[in-house]
This record gives sequence, structure tokens and C-alpha cells, in this order.
Amino acid sequence: MASYSKGKPEDAKVTEVINLSSKDAKWMKLEKIKYIDPLGKNRDWECASRTTRVEGSDVDGVGVLAILLKPTGTEVVLQKQFRAPLGGVCIETPAGLMDPNETIEECALRELKEETGYFGSKVIDQSPIIYNDPGFCNTNLSLVVVEIDLNDERNKNPVPQLEENEFIENFTVLLKDLPEELNKLEEQGYYLDARVQNVAAGIKIARTYKLF
Amino acid sequence: MASYSKGKPEDAKVTEVINLSSKDAKWMKLEKIKYIDPLGKNRDWECASRTTRVEGSDVDGVGVLAILLKPTGTEVVLQKQFRAPLGGVCIETPAGLMDPNETIEECALRELKEETGYFGSKVIDQSPIIYNDPGFCNTNLSLVVVEIDLNDERNKNPVPQLEENEFIENFTVLLKDLPEELNKLEEQGYYLDARVQNVAAGIKIARTYKLF
Repeated sequence: MASYSKGKPEDAKVTEVINLSSKDAKWMKLEKIKYIDPLGKNRDWECASRTTRVEGSDVDGVGVLAILLKPTGTEVVLQKQFRAPLGGVCIETPAGLMDPNETIEECALRELKEETGYFGSKVIDQSPIIYNDPGFCNTNLSLVVVEIDLNDERNKNPVPQLEENEFIENFTVLLKDLPEELNKLEEQGYYLDARVQNVAAGIKIARTYKLF
Repeated sequence: MASYSKGKPEDAKVTEVINLSSKDAKWMKLEKIKYIDPLGKNRDWECASRTTRVEGSDVDGVGVLAILLKPTGTEVVLQKQFRAPLGGVCIETPAGLMDPNETIEECALRELKEETGYFGSKVIDQSPIIYNDPGFCNTNLSLVVVEIDLNDERNKNPVPQLEENEFIENFTVLLKDLPEELNKLEEQGYYLDARVQNVAAGIKIARTYKLF
């Protein structure tokens, strides 16, 4: 698979950090949650959340584990993307926020197509809604496993259709080597997304404890 | 392993949500990140972050995959914890924020002891720093895999030492059944932490694609 970029993600850099009043923020907000603990005591907790969640929906977005079944071994699609909150380039899976009136599966296939150019041929699995950091924020997603049929004519020359402010480079690694490949990338100075690293942790644990 | 609770996590509930100016928040803040994109264009991104990260440190906390090697099968420790940002009880691993002058390993063993009562006997693996939701926030952790020796006298009757505002119930499941156990818990109305669910996703993917 050809990597693709309008500009290298590694070339972006942070120039300034400004404390922001919640009311000045467009994409996110802070809330105080008042709650009653299990013993009946009133308590407060703080919460960060996205302002973009579709009204009536309970999910922010999707992550896509895109699987390529090749004769040389099963591969997974990864991305390099500059992430301003980290001040560097992060290793992630294709992902994105839900559009109105979209199912999780539709969102996964749309984001996969937009970000990698691939048509997803078969949805293998769709996780429940999972919460990224539930002591801190309510952001969530569903992780969708999608197989890509490389014999499909539409997948012969995949061309991403990125937004004007997206700078994403796609690449693939052997799925069985995901833990070691992520370690190498981290040593090279890339940041690691918890979701992709924890899938790798699961693969590694299955191996360590001979779960099969 | 006996479950433990000062009060059932399921008994807590949200009573109010108040929009919060960032300057009124104690534990978190919003920032505007100004950055230059790979093509040289000035852009803004918003970021939520914790105010609690130890000065000079680049990690917020740890998650602990606590492994019990039993004759009946390898088990992993899970927790039920009320999470105000979700308005319900979430299934997670033992976890916590770093104290000053603490290594990741020390933090993992301390949090494991405090939250479950168990002495961790052997640190099997320590992940790189992983970012929970890098398009939204900079919160991060290291996932530490710890084995617990059940023959150790100190692990015969584990008693958690919870903070006054912590309501945690510990339980264990067979590691090989983690994907199915999480599905069952989600069907029962529990929320799922992305980190533990994605470890399960990795186990399931290793099984599906016969990675061993």
C-alpha cells in the first residue's frame, strides 16, 4: 500500500498554548458533574466532553481496524497523524466522528474510504461503545474491524480524500507483529494512541499466556 | 477473590451538569494550541488536559493488568467503578495517577495494592506512554502487566485501602474469556473502558486471525 500525504505529518509543530475559558472553546467543554455517591453523600466531579456529538446520539465516533488479507500475511492499516494536543505525530488507526443519521458501520466505512481510499468489503466486528478515559472525559467510540478485499477493482489504487486540515500518512504492518512494530515506532519518536497500542497489548498477552 | 465495596458503585447517580469556565475547573483545563501545519499554514486546535500531572513528568498515570495464575486458568482483575462523566458504572482495570518522584512501576504496584489489596509479585510488561484520545486531550498512561503470586502470604486475604471518595468493586474473569465477559457486562448496562476493551479486542483478533 502506498503511503500518502499532502505534507509530512512530522513537519507540523506547536507554536503556542493558550489557556482557554470553556465558553471560548468551540469543539469541547468542561462541566462540573454533581452526583450522589453510593453512601448518599453529595459530591462533584469534573468532565471534559466534545460539543460535536450528534444530538440524540450516544457515540462520538469510530475507530477502524482495517485488515488486509495478503498471501504474505494478514496486515493492518496504521496512520501517522500530527496531533496538536501531543505536539507530535501519533500512530493511530483510521478514525473519525459520526455524521448525523449515520450508523456506526456506515461511519466506519466512510472514514476508511476518506482517510485511506479503501473500500471496506466486510465488517467483521463492531465493539460496544467504549470510553477513552472515563475518569476525565466522556469521549467514546466504537472499534470496528473491517476486511479489505484487495481483489476488488476499487481497491487497486486507493486514493484518500482528506479534509483540507488533515495530514495523514497511511502504512501497513503485519498484524502478528503489531506489538513489536509499535515499539519500534515509539523508539523512533512517534506517540502511540492507547487504543491501537492496547489491541497490540491484547495480541501480546494472548501470546504470553498461550490463550489458544 | 472476594469483591469489595464500601458501597455499591451502581448506587451512585448524577444529579446535575453545570457548564464550567476553564478557570473554575480544578482538575482539568482547556487550551488552544496554535500550530503550523505541514504546509506552513497557521492553525488552531483545542485540547483538554489534566492539571494534576507532576511537574517535569510526561505521564499522567498507570493502568494495571493484574494477572492471577490459577490452576483453573489465568485470570485478570477487573473493577466496577462509578464514573460521573459517564453517569454510570464502568468496567476498568486498576489504575491511578502518578505521585511525585514515583516510577511507573512503583505507581502500578502502589495502585494495585491500594485498590485491590494485592501485592504485585512480578512486572511482566510496561507499555510505552499511550495517549487516550489524542485528537481531544493529552491524557496518557502506561499499561503495566503484573503477575500476582497467590502463594504469597500477603495475598491470602487482600484488603483494598480506598480513598474516602473511591467506590470500587473488584472481580476477576478468565483472561481467555475477557472478550465475551466484557460483552456480557455491557449487555447488563455497564460502560466499558476503551483500554480494557481494546486488550480484549486484541485477544479476539489474535484468535480470529490465528496469529500464533
